[in-house]
Amino acid sequence: MTDTASLSGGSLLLAWQLKHKNVLIVGGGDVASGRIESVLVADAHVTLVSPSAGLHPLTKQFIERYPDRITYHDRTFAGASDLESVDMVLTAIDDVEKSREICALARERRIPINVADIPPSCDFYFGSQIRSGPLQIMISTNGQSPKLANIIRKQIEASLPENAGGAVERVGVLRSKLRERAPGVGGELGKRRMRWMIDVCTDWEMEDLALLDEDMMAKLLDDGWEKNRVPRLKEVGGSRRRSSLSTHKSANTWLVSAAAFAAGAACSAAVFLARRR
Amino acid sequence: MTDTASLSGGSLLLAWQLKHKNVLIVGGGDVASGRIESVLVADAHVTLVSPSAGLHPLTKQFIERYPDRITYHDRTFAGASDLESVDMVLTAIDDVEKSREICALARERRIPINVADIPPSCDFYFGSQIRSGPLQIMISTNGQSPKLANIIRKQIEASLPENAGGAVERVGVLRSKLRERAPGVGGELGKRRMRWMIDVCTDWEMEDLALLDEDMMAKLLDDGWEKNRVPRLKEVGGSRRRSSLSTHKSANTWLVSAAAFAAGAACSAAVFLARRR
Repeated sequence: MTDTASLSGGSLLLAWQLKHKNVLIVGGGDVASGRIESVLVADAHVTLVSPSAGLHPLTKQFIERYPDRITYHDRTFAGASDLESVDMVLTAIDDVEKSREICALARERRIPINVADIPPSCDFYFGSQIRSGPLQIMISTNGQSPKLANIIRKQIEASLPENAGGAVERVGVLRSKLRERAPGVGGELGKRRMRWMIDVCTDWEMEDLALLDEDMMAKLLDDGWEKNRVPRLKEVGGSRRRSSLSTHKSANTWLVSAAAFAAGAACSAAVFLARRR
Repeated sequence: MTDTASLSGGSLLLAWQLKHKNVLIVGGGDVASGRIESVLVADAHVTLVSPSAGLHPLTKQFIERYPDRITYHDRTFAGASDLESVDMVLTAIDDVEKSREICALARERRIPINVADIPPSCDFYFGSQIRSGPLQIMISTNGQSPKLANIIRKQIEASLPENAGGAVERVGVLRSKLRERAPGVGGELGKRRMRWMIDVCTDWEMEDLALLDEDMMAKLLDDGWEKNRVPRLKEVGGSRRRSSLSTHKSANTWLVSAAAFAAGAACSAAVFLARRR
């Protein structure tokens, strides 16, 4: 509670769970296609309501590729009956009156809703997002500056360790393997498991974690978990192929230093040689 | 739709709106105190239910500092009556049975709920978060690795431009001033406003945007917006006091190079001096 004065003006950032949930999307244009992608990522079932004439090419592609995950109705919103068994509503149509009507119906039924471009009709907003496998990052400026949200997103994307998403995914697999090997909830064993996983994540570089394959994980558990230590990458049969920015940078510093050393030596030598003559 | 194979396994990241909403928090310990902070940031009204014996010092501080924003009840959860007029429920108590009971009651009423440590009883999760004024960033590994989420959060925090939150806040103020000066929704003017704001955000460094005060904003609008251009920082009376990490880094490279040059010169000189004798 360091900065109590600023405890306001924000949102509650959440990772909403949509597995086995039904999301109704009204509209099929550009914005709707982005919404479809976002909720498919979260394993939702999508019901899409939009006249086929207004479908964005991306929306069409989604409908074709995921017939089992998207139920498509070639028509406009039909009223309350469209909200049956729906867990979330996202609308992205140009008709403001229709949007407000859908919002009122959803709110009567306490179904969370986002109406594109009409903030008062939104229970939640979407921020600028990064996704890399199971790693998801959202940047929100709480409506102050979408452009800065975008700039910050790009900077974060550029500064993320190489294959951070891969590292997260591999560590997730390692965790389940560890839980299989040393099962049980809570207690001393649970604490030891957590500590060891933290040690692995802290001691290894993220690029190296992303290299973990089945064999390496087995060795890591045999020589690491069983002996209560964290082996190095090489000990479990891995090898680095570094190409990260930080490596380049420090390599550059060394090159520059070596060049400067040589230049210094050459200058000094030249002075002495000149004196000799 | 570049990577359709991985359109699963994630969450829907959202910025949930809680202004004028009531959030019930059951429990007053360490986890609950973090929840209280998160929802106060989002301008929610909090109803806190927890026996005073179990209150974390931070929770106590929140109750004392925000008597108008937190309604505190020194007791355990009372049942369905506690859920009246509630828009969201967050529980953080050790009693698993009680937690599940609260979850069932909330779900009957379609009130979104998060039960700490019981994923199946959660409609949403909290990620690792960064907050700097109106700028909020959430990192979610979708449960794969809380430790990596934490490491990535720290790396992002370190790589963020200095005072990024301040820049977002200042740009938000500039945007409202621009809307006052050139009011109206949509149309050509709306597009011109958006383009000019984008140009300002793109042309100026984030550290410089954070320096914008009232006078500078007035000049920026007079000499910039009115003349359809983006003046430089100096033109509107600002001056840089750079101390960013990148500056430090390049300064270090120069120091190292200078030292290497001197070392090279000294070595070479030593060789020649030794030969002379």
